[in-house]
Amino acid sequence: MSHKERDAGVLMPSNETSAAAPRRITILGATGSVGRSTVDVVRAHPESFVVEAVVGGRDAAALADLAIALDARFAAVADEAAGPALKDALAGSGIACGAGESAVLEAAEREADVVLAAISGAAGLAPTVAAMKPGRTIALANKECLVSAGVAFMAHAARMGVTLRAVDSEHNALEQALRAGRREDAIALTLTASGGPFRTWERARLERASVNEALAHPTWSMGAKISIDSATLMNKGLELIEAHHLFGMPADRLEVLVHPQSIVHGLVHWRDGSITAGLGAPDMRIPIVNALSLGDARLDLDLKRLDFAALGGFTFEPADRERFRCLALAEAAMAAGGGAPTVLNAANEIAVAAFCAGRIGFFGIAEAVERTLDAMSATTLPAPASVADALTLDAQTRARTEEILQDPKAPRDRRILQDRAPRPI
Amino acid sequence: MSHKERDAGVLMPSNETSAAAPRRITILGATGSVGRSTVDVVRAHPESFVVEAVVGGRDAAALADLAIALDARFAAVADEAAGPALKDALAGSGIACGAGESAVLEAAEREADVVLAAISGAAGLAPTVAAMKPGRTIALANKECLVSAGVAFMAHAARMGVTLRAVDSEHNALEQALRAGRREDAIALTLTASGGPFRTWERARLERASVNEALAHPTWSMGAKISIDSATLMNKGLELIEAHHLFGMPADRLEVLVHPQSIVHGLVHWRDGSITAGLGAPDMRIPIVNALSLGDARLDLDLKRLDFAALGGFTFEPADRERFRCLALAEAAMAAGGGAPTVLNAANEIAVAAFCAGRIGFFGIAEAVERTLDAMSATTLPAPASVADALTLDAQTRARTEEILQDPKAPRDRRILQDRAPRPI
Repeated sequence: MSHKERDAGVLMPSNETSAAAPRRITILGATGSVGRSTVDVVRAHPESFVVEAVVGGRDAAALADLAIALDARFAAVADEAAGPALKDALAGSGIACGAGESAVLEAAEREADVVLAAISGAAGLAPTVAAMKPGRTIALANKECLVSAGVAFMAHAARMGVTLRAVDSEHNALEQALRAGRREDAIALTLTASGGPFRTWERARLERASVNEALAHPTWSMGAKISIDSATLMNKGLELIEAHHLFGMPADRLEVLVHPQSIVHGLVHWRDGSITAGLGAPDMRIPIVNALSLGDARLDLDLKRLDFAALGGFTFEPADRERFRCLALAEAAMAAGGGAPTVLNAANEIAVAAFCAGRIGFFGIAEAVERTLDAMSATTLPAPASVADALTLDAQTRARTEEILQDPKAPRDRRILQDRAPRPI
Repeated sequence: MSHKERDAGVLMPSNETSAAAPRRITILGATGSVGRSTVDVVRAHPESFVVEAVVGGRDAAALADLAIALDARFAAVADEAAGPALKDALAGSGIACGAGESAVLEAAEREADVVLAAISGAAGLAPTVAAMKPGRTIALANKECLVSAGVAFMAHAARMGVTLRAVDSEHNALEQALRAGRREDAIALTLTASGGPFRTWERARLERASVNEALAHPTWSMGAKISIDSATLMNKGLELIEAHHLFGMPADRLEVLVHPQSIVHGLVHWRDGSITAGLGAPDMRIPIVNALSLGDARLDLDLKRLDFAALGGFTFEPADRERFRCLALAEAAMAAGGGAPTVLNAANEIAVAAFCAGRIGFFGIAEAVERTLDAMSATTLPAPASVADALTLDAQTRARTEEILQDPKAPRDRRILQDRAPRPI
């Protein structure tokens, strides 16, 4: 059924036995890693979804292909400069399109039942907030909404009557496991971490880790920023902060466990000694299809069932906060609360970009973040009262981290790399 | 607060802030392994429970001690001959008592909100059924109710408006994990098995395994019958049948996974690729305190939290149905349905007793069960229409298994042991 037929009021064919009407979905960040997995899931369930809008960053050709394949009504590309190419590619398809920030916000605001929010980084904040309309489900893959603006974001979601569903595999697993009891009976939540590509590396080797080495994640196939964050364990720290807001769990009841096989994603520890865990293959389609389900009515995913006997076993180990100082910084920022997580996240985005550009070494990331937290007295900052305030603090932080990176005395770690040329990723 | 004070209408002290009134509990099988763990749990929650009745098998002194410690109103011992000793031991306590089958049934029928049904073997069937009164919760530790009389037992429970809670660690874990979704979306359930004391034994060594070797369970401390059943893996087979009835799950969607550490107890595989697992230390107090909770309001259990990093890891392996033929027999009986599980269970009880008495060797257990299933054409028998019918078939089976054991030509395995003297356990 094309969108033109839908517009013309064509009814569902009578041999469609699906109990529920299809839900209207918008995908923010459709050309990214999570977005593409979402497209796979949506295409596998044509009876369950109609696609309202798709949003991409820069790649007009890829976005146009997706829009056509999904029979979307609207496509928006964030980069103004990519607008003409998108328009050309969609010519004759009947799919409306736009470019730039206003087009992205328009896509987020258009009529929909569920919005998959997968624009990565602080750039995802405004469109996700724009997508929050009464009665909607927001399937949240953007962590920065909760890390940068957690208090304001959760308050806004409650005010708007929005249902939040977690897309991160760990949070989705915990969301499911938490259904086994009452929230107040959960005494702790454990998020697992694969440990990243550097789990077994010694300090001396880690000091000289390259960008490509950091990008080589052992179990998950993901975008560049999150892959680097997984290598530093900052990703797990950001996820702790995410869980803190999403599940209303105090900082001292959230913990990280290194589990290299990435099969167990999260554990809920109950006051009666029972533990409920969420598991699954390391395949983003699994949490996505779950987050897109209507209430607890699950959709099918055509996957081979995990064969635990063939897997043979799981291992667990503590996280090393000395080699992976970003985790300790994130835990401290979570415990401090207020504006500290906002600063942590913004400083980290700049530091990761500097690492990817060859400006600093691997340990320089944590150092730049720590120096920024100190320079801004982040632990004394109040929580941003609104998402707009969070974005202001985010921008101030980015500027401060850049200053720190340009300071000839710091980060010290840069000296290690001064003989290296920038490496594109 | 003694039961005399309760009778006199003494109110709860005003500093008791417990939201719910204490629930009246009866413990059937109080002196056994599960019963004693239940007593621990009940004594740890004096604000949550008042004890109505306790039932034991033969040990009058132990039962009297428990009745006094728990401030029960009534104590019953199954063995008539132990009646006078029980009466003497309770003299002056104000606790009423009785002996023999009628006293056990009286205990089961007395006013209670929750009955912990932990009399082991087919002997537990009649008292458990007697305990089924409208509105009650039955915390079920006796597997034979479901294995021997599953269809009739579940129908009776539904008719009586009884809430069943699973006490076996695997079933309790699955019961909790199943709350993460709708029953119809669960495509398979996995029950884990420690593999028992003989998991790594080769066939030749297993052939000559002694009773004491079979009793030495690696992870769980349990009674003799269930320990032998764990050594043969019959226990896991009986648990599959239990899960089949308890969760209404078809036989071909129930599977066994060997997991020697006994931390993961059960896994629910959902149609969307997510897996929810129930975990916990191998401590029966955990499933017991969960099964005794009111709805999903969990009680505390004062346990150190499991440290997964310290555990280091889990292993998984397939079950070997060649060395552990009892598992294959149970799976076949479950698939056949009808009267086959009743026959399987009764034959196994006799065979295990014969093994414990030194009459047959380890492989003789499976052989006696298989010969009984064949001799009675068990796969063609209809399901017992009532619990009474199940008990009749159970008795017929026991007699037949005894005949088979006394047949000089069989079980063949007896020849292996003809030079051995009986070994008491």
